[in-house]
Amino acid sequence: MFYPEPVSKLIDGFMKLPGIGPKTAGRLAFFVLNMKEDDVLDLAKALVNAKRQLHYCSVCNNITDLDPCHICRDKRRDGSVICVVQEPRDVVAMEKTREFEGYYHVLHGAISPMDGIGPEDIRIPDLLKRLGDEQVKEVILATNPNIEGEATAMYISRLIKPFGIRVTRIAHGLPVGGDLEYADEVTLTKALEGRRDL
Amino acid sequence: MFYPEPVSKLIDGFMKLPGIGPKTAGRLAFFVLNMKEDDVLDLAKALVNAKRQLHYCSVCNNITDLDPCHICRDKRRDGSVICVVQEPRDVVAMEKTREFEGYYHVLHGAISPMDGIGPEDIRIPDLLKRLGDEQVKEVILATNPNIEGEATAMYISRLIKPFGIRVTRIAHGLPVGGDLEYADEVTLTKALEGRRDL
Repeated sequence: MFYPEPVSKLIDGFMKLPGIGPKTAGRLAFFVLNMKEDDVLDLAKALVNAKRQLHYCSVCNNITDLDPCHICRDKRRDGSVICVVQEPRDVVAMEKTREFEGYYHVLHGAISPMDGIGPEDIRIPDLLKRLGDEQVKEVILATNPNIEGEATAMYISRLIKPFGIRVTRIAHGLPVGGDLEYADEVTLTKALEGRRDL
Repeated sequence: MFYPEPVSKLIDGFMKLPGIGPKTAGRLAFFVLNMKEDDVLDLAKALVNAKRQLHYCSVCNNITDLDPCHICRDKRRDGSVICVVQEPRDVVAMEKTREFEGYYHVLHGAISPMDGIGPEDIRIPDLLKRLGDEQVKEVILATNPNIEGEATAMYISRLIKPFGIRVTRIAHGLPVGGDLEYADEVTLTKALEGRRDL
């Protein structure tokens, strides 16, 4: 009512994004009005292309514009290790460490009985199929360190161990740069449990 | 490098918006991948339309898809009062009060010698022309209560007073729901100065 229709439509559009309420949406919309037309067209195109050109990799279920994705295509990587993560963003986080040389498997979620998400609703069956086909010696479970992530890790570990494959879980402990004083008890307990010889 | 190209282009696009850094842009981009295709198309269209269909009203310089804008077209409003604001968003803020019945004039900025913005760089000449043409009896200066806004208000007030038009400035004082204890001294001084009989 207060805004011209093209502005209010843009505000409505922005408000569908996470963490953007009416105030921020209004601020963004008015910013767009002052942006260069080319930049606005680029953003609009990027939105449509991201939605249309991307799909899931048929091997690891990561988001990709190729199939298989650029990681699964990379023959220099170590085929004996698969790192299991919950979301495509977790693959990016792992890749940024530049420490992991194996392949990935993206579950697209975690087991969560509270939300009605069982093992069949995430990509666990695909993972088992891969373990049967490929020469995997170790599965690293890098699901999130919360209840759902732990439950998923436990579940997968019990499924895989009978195959004779090594199953590991990423370490819990204090984040680097963190402060012992402010660490919660559970993290500190895990950090103690996971202590290593120097 | 870590993201497929369509994703990184979308992240770059989001990062051009104000208050959105790499982390938020990444979160928004991955959210878009999971949105319904129709919603994404609507947002892309809204972006392009907002940029292409909107322009400035030839009378008041507000942003509009019509010309003159819906406020300047409204003959029921009071033609004897013009409220001068800095930005189109300020018009929306004023309209939300439902207390102002006159017309607006949008300056698109404020005088700011620090940023090299002088009186000729904002829409002050247009305002003077309107005052000559129209039957205006009062100009309400509703620029922001900061240094630039005050300077702009003072400047306009000195220009207009010789025309014999009443020039008023919106009140300074404590915001409603505010707390005396936490008010800054300048605001409190202004609130005292502006005290009224009950």
